[in-house]
Amino acid sequence: MAEEVKVLRTWSSPFALRIVWALKLKGVEYETILEDLSSKSPLLVQYNPVYKKVPVLVHNGKAMAESLLILEYIDETWKQKYPLLPEDPYERARARFWAKFSDDKVLPSIWDAFTTQGKEQEEAIMPVMENLKLLEEELRGKKFFSGETIGFLDLALGWLANLVSMFEEITGLKMIDEETFPLLVAWIHDFSHVPLIQETWPPRDRMLTKFRAMREPYLAAARNHLPK
Amino acid sequence: MAEEVKVLRTWSSPFALRIVWALKLKGVEYETILEDLSSKSPLLVQYNPVYKKVPVLVHNGKAMAESLLILEYIDETWKQKYPLLPEDPYERARARFWAKFSDDKVLPSIWDAFTTQGKEQEEAIMPVMENLKLLEEELRGKKFFSGETIGFLDLALGWLANLVSMFEEITGLKMIDEETFPLLVAWIHDFSHVPLIQETWPPRDRMLTKFRAMREPYLAAARNHLPK
Repeated sequence: MAEEVKVLRTWSSPFALRIVWALKLKGVEYETILEDLSSKSPLLVQYNPVYKKVPVLVHNGKAMAESLLILEYIDETWKQKYPLLPEDPYERARARFWAKFSDDKVLPSIWDAFTTQGKEQEEAIMPVMENLKLLEEELRGKKFFSGETIGFLDLALGWLANLVSMFEEITGLKMIDEETFPLLVAWIHDFSHVPLIQETWPPRDRMLTKFRAMREPYLAAARNHLPK
Repeated sequence: MAEEVKVLRTWSSPFALRIVWALKLKGVEYETILEDLSSKSPLLVQYNPVYKKVPVLVHNGKAMAESLLILEYIDETWKQKYPLLPEDPYERARARFWAKFSDDKVLPSIWDAFTTQGKEQEEAIMPVMENLKLLEEELRGKKFFSGETIGFLDLALGWLANLVSMFEEITGLKMIDEETFPLLVAWIHDFSHVPLIQETWPPRDRMLTKFRAMREPYLAAARNHLPK
């Protein structure tokens, strides 16, 4: 069967990387369509009219959005090779739970700590620590979140392996230190160095420039609202 | 196999009803454990330590949270009877997409319109209309979101069938009128009157009292911040 698989992504989106990784793990050939979110293509608007965001997967003309849901689609469509989710329904529920937790809680909390300073940041770091402790527990006894090899939850949390060290470099705030989070530190190292993952990381310098620029308006807004 | 199935819920939670409906559709016997969120039981804290929220499903001693994920678990565990999600991976992705959209966008927008008044409410109603139009489109050519019979997406959107008319009664603001949303109006009627659904609705008077009380602090806060 001639498959047509396209991934609409940006050069930097950590959510789009989930899709790239899943397709690579499954050995599915795909075409990359690079989007510039500052000037969205008609294709992106057509394929993801609700959110107009990347990633979008287009498979034989059918488009879908939401990276975690695309992972499920990829796992269901290309079943034979490299299952992403475990087989057991309870383990599947567990992987999905922590993936959702990553998007709903971990990432927003880390973003809050990244975009604040001083006393505000001291408060913002507390939920980060609580959330990371839960992830640390989830890693206990395992090399990867999915066990001996990477799977659904590792792909879902992949952004953590890439972004946190940049956020730390930009802010000077250590979020994931080895003493508090030895398993997460080991996971970040191991996951980042899986060859198939390693070759996909966007250029660090360009990412740092991008995130520095994204952070600036938050700091400026905070400066303008300082109590007199 | 002796199954032990428990549902931790409150008398009013629309998310817990998703689980009740799914188990009833599957013909799974279960025990209800009624929680009072103003005084959370040790059981709830033990079973859902991250969110301490209902619903929680406990199956043979294994607990899980997040109602949409529990629906997936139920569908995967009791496969034979009454499949909730369609078989086709693309249709599954589509059902999951709109279910997530319902939780991420539709419900928060309706809540905003419910908890505001006057000019603020006029602004809040605009995203509600946009979101509902997307759901209206999704119903085109179908009786239920899942087709001829109710399924995953109908259960996910079940709160809409119950809450909106109460919110309308409390605020005096019409959100889903027959002229703009004929398919949604028909769906609300048809879904609400599926016998298995109809018998589960919480008492309307008690719900109205609860939501009036939940709305009051928002209005009080708005009054206190009125420009002088």
